[in-house]
Amino acid sequence: MRLIDGRTGIEVIEREECLELLRSTDIGRIAVVDAGHPVIFPVNYAMDGDVIVLRTAEGTKLDAALQGGPVAFEIDDADPRSHGAWSVIVTGWARVAVAPAQLERFEQLGLHPWSEHRKDSWVTVHPERVTGRRIVAEGERAAPDTQA
Amino acid sequence: MRLIDGRTGIEVIEREECLELLRSTDIGRIAVVDAGHPVIFPVNYAMDGDVIVLRTAEGTKLDAALQGGPVAFEIDDADPRSHGAWSVIVTGWARVAVAPAQLERFEQLGLHPWSEHRKDSWVTVHPERVTGRRIVAEGERAAPDTQA
Repeated sequence: MRLIDGRTGIEVIEREECLELLRSTDIGRIAVVDAGHPVIFPVNYAMDGDVIVLRTAEGTKLDAALQGGPVAFEIDDADPRSHGAWSVIVTGWARVAVAPAQLERFEQLGLHPWSEHRKDSWVTVHPERVTGRRIVAEGERAAPDTQA
Repeated sequence: MRLIDGRTGIEVIEREECLELLRSTDIGRIAVVDAGHPVIFPVNYAMDGDVIVLRTAEGTKLDAALQGGPVAFEIDDADPRSHGAWSVIVTGWARVAVAPAQLERFEQLGLHPWSEHRKDSWVTVHPERVTGRRIVAEGERAAPDTQA
């Protein structure tokens, strides 16, 4: 079932499909609050079940994680021609993973830093809220008289 | 001149090239702080000189903008095969544009909402800090003995 807001043409992506989309790609952006200011970092990531897993070096991301700070995580894709696009936004809490069993499992995720920068810490984002939106491509939108 | 950190393989993109990259694409993500929590929104945008211009409907983005809140704005691109990637991050302040001359100029930017959702407000992000990073594709990295 597609939940579409006829007025805005924006489709709601339900949680399960959001999680599938999170599993289908490996680049996202994480935002944290640093001294009252929002900060964004692009990251590569993997999923461990419903948990987002990142590797990080020391810095703001890790600092925030160590403090168990609130984070937002986003993935998206867009087609500039059709103006079709989707995005998934996760809000939750970051934690540094230290449990040996967990670290052993994370090592199997195939999550390697893209740069040669050492990233020795594993950070997890436990989703509290997972929301998705899809802008249906222009050619695939319902005609006005069928909209809600 | 390319500024490359030999240890991390990460290239610094200087401000002028960051601004060129901002002009070369039209989808980014904006982060604001809402009640102490980071919030990210994917947005389409245009540049008016060095200023990022968005359209928005009422909501958190606009609320933050109306309060002249600090924002972070991010664009990126990545090649999953070569692990080459770049990102540009802008931090600055959001403002709602109301000056008639400015609005008239913005109307010429060709910035249309992708969805059919009405977006009557124009918001600008005045960059305070513009930084860029590029992870050089694996095949193009300097050999270890030539690194700094």
